[in-house]
Amino acid sequence: MIVDSAAYLQGRRVDVGCAPQDFARLRAAVARPDQHADGERGFVWVGLHDPGQRELAEVADAFGLHPLAVEDALTAHQRPKLERYDDSLFLVLKTLWYVDAEDAVETGEVALFVGEDFVITVRHGGGSELATARQTLERQQQVLSHGPSSVVYAVTDHVVDGYLKVVEDLQVDVDEVEVSVFSPARTDDSMRIYTLKREIAEARRAVMPLREPMRRFSSGAVSGIAEEAGPFFRDVLDHLNQAAEAVDSLDSLLSTAFDASVARLGIQQNDDMRKISAGAALVVVPTLIAGVYGMNFTHMPELSWTFGYPFALLLMVSAVVGLWVFFKRSGWL
Amino acid sequence: MIVDSAAYLQGRRVDVGCAPQDFARLRAAVARPDQHADGERGFVWVGLHDPGQRELAEVADAFGLHPLAVEDALTAHQRPKLERYDDSLFLVLKTLWYVDAEDAVETGEVALFVGEDFVITVRHGGGSELATARQTLERQQQVLSHGPSSVVYAVTDHVVDGYLKVVEDLQVDVDEVEVSVFSPARTDDSMRIYTLKREIAEARRAVMPLREPMRRFSSGAVSGIAEEAGPFFRDVLDHLNQAAEAVDSLDSLLSTAFDASVARLGIQQNDDMRKISAGAALVVVPTLIAGVYGMNFTHMPELSWTFGYPFALLLMVSAVVGLWVFFKRSGWL
Amino acid sequence: MIVDSAAYLQGRRVDVGCAPQDFARLRAAVARPDQHADGERGFVWVGLHDPGQRELAEVADAFGLHPLAVEDALTAHQRPKLERYDDSLFLVLKTLWYVDAEDAVETGEVALFVGEDFVITVRHGGGSELATARQTLERQQQVLSHGPSSVVYAVTDHVVDGYLKVVEDLQVDVDEVEVSVFSPARTDDSMRIYTLKREIAEARRAVMPLREPMRRFSSGAVSGIAEEAGPFFRDVLDHLNQAAEAVDSLDSLLSTAFDASVARLGIQQNDDMRKISAGAALVVVPTLIAGVYGMNFTHMPELSWTFGYPFALLLMVSAVVGLWVFFKRSGWL
Amino acid sequence: MIVDSAAYLQGRRVDVGCAPQDFARLRAAVARPDQHADGERGFVWVGLHDPGQRELAEVADAFGLHPLAVEDALTAHQRPKLERYDDSLFLVLKTLWYVDAEDAVETGEVALFVGEDFVITVRHGGGSELATARQTLERQQQVLSHGPSSVVYAVTDHVVDGYLKVVEDLQVDVDEVEVSVFSPARTDDSMRIYTLKREIAEARRAVMPLREPMRRFSSGAVSGIAEEAGPFFRDVLDHLNQAAEAVDSLDSLLSTAFDASVARLGIQQNDDMRKISAGAALVVVPTLIAGVYGMNFTHMPELSWTFGYPFALLLMVSAVVGLWVFFKRSGWL
Amino acid sequence: MIVDSAAYLQGRRVDVGCAPQDFARLRAAVARPDQHADGERGFVWVGLHDPGQRELAEVADAFGLHPLAVEDALTAHQRPKLERYDDSLFLVLKTLWYVDAEDAVETGEVALFVGEDFVITVRHGGGSELATARQTLERQQQVLSHGPSSVVYAVTDHVVDGYLKVVEDLQVDVDEVEVSVFSPARTDDSMRIYTLKREIAEARRAVMPLREPMRRFSSGAVSGIAEEAGPFFRDVLDHLNQAAEAVDSLDSLLSTAFDASVARLGIQQNDDMRKISAGAALVVVPTLIAGVYGMNFTHMPELSWTFGYPFALLLMVSAVVGLWVFFKRSGWL
Repeated sequence: MIVDSAAYLQGRRVDVGCAPQDFARLRAAVARPDQHADGERGFVWVGLHDPGQRELAEVADAFGLHPLAVEDALTAHQRPKLERYDDSLFLVLKTLWYVDAEDAVETGEVALFVGEDFVITVRHGGGSELATARQTLERQQQVLSHGPSSVVYAVTDHVVDGYLKVVEDLQVDVDEVEVSVFSPARTDDSMRIYTLKREIAEARRAVMPLREPMRRFSSGAVSGIAEEAGPFFRDVLDHLNQAAEAVDSLDSLLSTAFDASVARLGIQQNDDMRKISAGAALVVVPTLIAGVYGMNFTHMPELSWTFGYPFALLLMVSAVVGLWVFFKRSGWL
Repeated sequence: MIVDSAAYLQGRRVDVGCAPQDFARLRAAVARPDQHADGERGFVWVGLHDPGQRELAEVADAFGLHPLAVEDALTAHQRPKLERYDDSLFLVLKTLWYVDAEDAVETGEVALFVGEDFVITVRHGGGSELATARQTLERQQQVLSHGPSSVVYAVTDHVVDGYLKVVEDLQVDVDEVEVSVFSPARTDDSMRIYTLKREIAEARRAVMPLREPMRRFSSGAVSGIAEEAGPFFRDVLDHLNQAAEAVDSLDSLLSTAFDASVARLGIQQNDDMRKISAGAALVVVPTLIAGVYGMNFTHMPELSWTFGYPFALLLMVSAVVGLWVFFKRSGWL
Repeated sequence: MIVDSAAYLQGRRVDVGCAPQDFARLRAAVARPDQHADGERGFVWVGLHDPGQRELAEVADAFGLHPLAVEDALTAHQRPKLERYDDSLFLVLKTLWYVDAEDAVETGEVALFVGEDFVITVRHGGGSELATARQTLERQQQVLSHGPSSVVYAVTDHVVDGYLKVVEDLQVDVDEVEVSVFSPARTDDSMRIYTLKREIAEARRAVMPLREPMRRFSSGAVSGIAEEAGPFFRDVLDHLNQAAEAVDSLDSLLSTAFDASVARLGIQQNDDMRKISAGAALVVVPTLIAGVYGMNFTHMPELSWTFGYPFALLLMVSAVVGLWVFFKRSGWL
Repeated sequence: MIVDSAAYLQGRRVDVGCAPQDFARLRAAVARPDQHADGERGFVWVGLHDPGQRELAEVADAFGLHPLAVEDALTAHQRPKLERYDDSLFLVLKTLWYVDAEDAVETGEVALFVGEDFVITVRHGGGSELATARQTLERQQQVLSHGPSSVVYAVTDHVVDGYLKVVEDLQVDVDEVEVSVFSPARTDDSMRIYTLKREIAEARRAVMPLREPMRRFSSGAVSGIAEEAGPFFRDVLDHLNQAAEAVDSLDSLLSTAFDASVARLGIQQNDDMRKISAGAALVVVPTLIAGVYGMNFTHMPELSWTFGYPFALLLMVSAVVGLWVFFKRSGWL
Repeated sequence: MIVDSAAYLQGRRVDVGCAPQDFARLRAAVARPDQHADGERGFVWVGLHDPGQRELAEVADAFGLHPLAVEDALTAHQRPKLERYDDSLFLVLKTLWYVDAEDAVETGEVALFVGEDFVITVRHGGGSELATARQTLERQQQVLSHGPSSVVYAVTDHVVDGYLKVVEDLQVDVDEVEVSVFSPARTDDSMRIYTLKREIAEARRAVMPLREPMRRFSSGAVSGIAEEAGPFFRDVLDHLNQAAEAVDSLDSLLSTAFDASVARLGIQQNDDMRKISAGAALVVVPTLIAGVYGMNFTHMPELSWTFGYPFALLLMVSAVVGLWVFFKRSGWL
């Protein structure tokens, strides 16, 4: 589905007045020399969402995209990567968003074809709509004048902002786990920690491989990406590094929390064992007393006492109370 | 055993009409200058499967293969590697396939000798038949015209696709382990996890060392591999990286699952201990009551009550019920 | 808030006699050629603390700071980094200090804009006041004559000294944990260790990324930082490396201490189990004796002995004493 | 002790007819120009085993060896290394062999001095005799014609083959441990695993540092080592890499096996606890029944029944059988 | 305190006949041209031990040492490092020695100022006296003729020899721990292992950072260090690498030993639990028998048997013996 397609010239969206799939007219609009002030070239931005094979083939045809890259853009199971095909760049990003209902990190994908006078963005999966990125960009005339690079910046910035949001949500989850682990209540946090670690691994797979392309963009060493856009990509790289650092730090925090939860489990088990033992003592000691007075000796003075029975019961109760106090004091009960 | 041997010219299989082991005529067929359009050279592809020493020696003789490489190709216990011998390349790949019946990853080996006008593929072990790779390649005339490089591409692509399949099967196994670990049932997953880790280590030994050769092929820096084939090898490298990433991720997931399974074991042991203790209490408390009424005091009013015995039994049952409710409420039973 | 702003010439603070926010006059003061001895240029140092957006905008305007850097300096959640914007450097440092009351490491931030004739320092959060750094620097005329680099040195030196102090405090905490872990008392150190590891991770995030900028400053390879200041930055780098090494070493020490605490827990649990078992034996053995003499055989000579009852009690006491001695000797009690 | 010393010319051992320690005549033999076909220089190979200081000093004198290298060759506690002293190379290898009786890996050492016209091999410790390496080499005339390099190849090949044999033996041990860990029998494999890990660490210390010298030899970049010998050293390097990979893989497998053995221990402990509890129930429940019928109530109809006693016994037996079946079914017994 | 100061010329100590602190005359002695054979320059070696600030200041003055280096040499809490100040080198070494009484590794420090015609050694803390290093050096005329480099070699060689001694002592400690862990006796080795790991970490901090300077010295790439001294520093580097390798290996061995000790603890706990359970069975089974014969049924034939009581006792004893044998056989007792 074509979400939006437009021509940009001199930092402004140009109203070409044609159907969004009329790529030829759009390209022609930005190529007309009379529209060029100071030699600056405009560009076309076509935004697709979950395109079908035929739809993507038409776009590929119109802009001369490389078949291998098109194939990669069609199916959404790529690793983040930057590749050069002849004159154009092919960039794949993973998008991340957090679904509160399931405490899960979901992933989508955005592929960008970046040519001299066009950018094609292909988004797969939900989350991370690029419409807002486009609106934000259209308000920044100066950035737009960097040409196709500005779209790459707008999209990566948008996607990486999404990473930071996900990282924040994960941070909240980790904080909850931490509270749960160190609460006096007995909780089995192993499954929660496992799931979180898996989510974090998913985030890592999106974040880490994107750093190299951003580093190259920010150093201005990639032909096809405007050198003037370098500081902007440095900003994106900075956020990316923050996300990467947070992901690493959360992962190692979770490992420590897991170890601590196992240790606390051992302590609680020991506490239980002591409590059980003390409880058992409260029963077996009076049982011993009862046993003693159940002996059949002919000469047992207590047996014939008038208050022998109450005395025995008292003895039992005293033993129980004594043991109770003793175990309470030594912290076993 | 010679599985197939054929001459290729201008992107097509040439029917030379000779026995598959008549290497001289095959080579001659692709060397005849009158068959060459636009200076393009054809090549011969000889496919061997578990060849004997003599059989391989004949091939080595016909194509002038280096003795050390031939020795390596004969026995199937090499690491994946790329070596140059004079004008020809020697590439060793590990093939992987998954045997459902045993939940095991099996490994085979493919060695390739790549010369200017020939490719010899030597396959060891079952799985990963190259016949399909040959058929697929013969349908892609344009790729075939890259010469011997196209065979290297077809074979590595085929083998690496096998890696991805194995990784998927391992993923299923890991998911099963995960379900088993976090199921309420008590399961001993340690052996399963151990075995899976060993399988994953096996996969890693096939996948990891192949990345360097693929990286070099895709950069076009290896003489003997056509530069035009670079994007194709970049594709293979991409899949290889996906497999490598998945292997790493599965391994670390298994480690976490193992730790979680140990933690859950501790929790279950604690649950058992509590259950046992509660159960014990249900027996020792009535025993105490019985002990009390077994005492031999002369003056024990209950003993001579008409309903003394039922009263005692009721007392015992009440104690048992009371304890039962108490332990149920506190989650010990 | 502008904490202090001053002009420095020839290693001395110059009394310009204007308001601190009169940046134009301050810059003019150091730019007047007649004040220059041997071609040395003076500089202005403006110190801000938690500036508002408008306040910072004014400064940015007066000194021509880059908007992206200004944005970074405004919000205090940056990673330590060094960036070049045209002619000026932008350096972000994390400040660390230790709050005894909470055993916690707090972090603040200092951003520096370093131009040819000015330094702007922007401090966020409490702790690490730069006023003392300024006073120290103003006493070192020779260092001051290195120009803006001298301020960078003074600030980084001050901040890194703060790191060393924090590391010392953490060392004290780790020593306490160590004593607690290996004390005979039963302590649950898991939460303390977890918290300390988190604090250490926080310190690491401040310390580690600063090493690269300091390395570059000390090698004299950063234009805008005086080469003569190299040895001073080498000194800072040295302290930074000390802090980094200490942080790593404390972290790994804590991990070992944690493992040891878990091991000791196991030992204590075993000790408990033995103690409990010995205690149980002291009760069940006399219970058995009582049971024996509670049997109803017609012919049991002891029952009719005059001292049968005392004899039975003595038997019980002897058994208890005997078991006590036995268990004491074998270390179970 | 001089094991053997001989002169080699044109790929053949030359019978000089002098005492093995007559180094001057041996050198002269290979230096006589009339023996040289096609300018090829011969060489002397002196093989020493555990030489005394004086013996080694004589050799050093005769061939002009560097004192520091001689000192290193005398005592057998060096790390594998390659050093250049003026015109000659000094290579130290660790030899490994497996002593079945003790399940232990033993280490020896071989030092090689490689000059233009001589090789001195100094072997320390048992195992890895070089006589077989010499015999094999003397049968390969073509290899021998590479000069001293051929001896370096023959010795390293021989030593590295020894590594592979040791690795195979360790593999067998690890397989045994694996079987033991996952057998239903209760085994304490911790000591075996510890010892194996120590042996593997020993092997690693021999294998790993040798890779760099072999890499350099195989790249032909070491003057004094014939470039034509490169493919042979590549072969040795390949085997070395195989050994290195196997060592790493065994080590990590052992770690996993160890973790699994600890986990299984926990499971077995839990099984024990359940078995014990079930066993206890089989005793305490009939004890309770006995206690009930030991009560002294006047009105207990069962007591006066004719078959009261058998009834009580039957009750006990039924309880035991019932519990037995219950625990068997729930897997506790 | 000045320990010794002397002038060296042509490989010999020169008797200048002045006070040790008369640095000017010492320097003059080695600077007099008529004493120079073959252009070789002599040098002065001043050895200080725990110098006061004033004492060091005098030396610094006499030899023109850099203030920052002097400051570093005064306080003894530096990391090992090599720095260049103008024409002179500044090297800091950690000294290590083992105190048997406390099983502890102690650290000291040696700082060296190396100029063209002087070496100043500043030693802090006990252990590692340099007097012996000086004596050894003075006996090696040829080494001494390398000038100041020879002192650097003598001191580093001496200090690194100290490392090897410490490593040997630690090896003994680790062996003891190993024996203790795998002895049948129940030992708590966690504290010992923790302490040893801390000592090893201390040794690592001394050993590791020294490798880079030694590598540079041995490659002859440091101006101020004679190239001819390269092989000597290669020797030191070799020992340093041995120490480093041993430290790493001991550390990982200790980790494995720790894990094994935890595993054995679990096994011992299980053994205890079985022993306890078997012991309990020996008491509760006769208690059940006693309970049975304590029942009050009218018709219990055994009760009126003449040998009923001995029969019951025999039954109990038989039960105990039977259980004993059973548990012995199944390894529970």
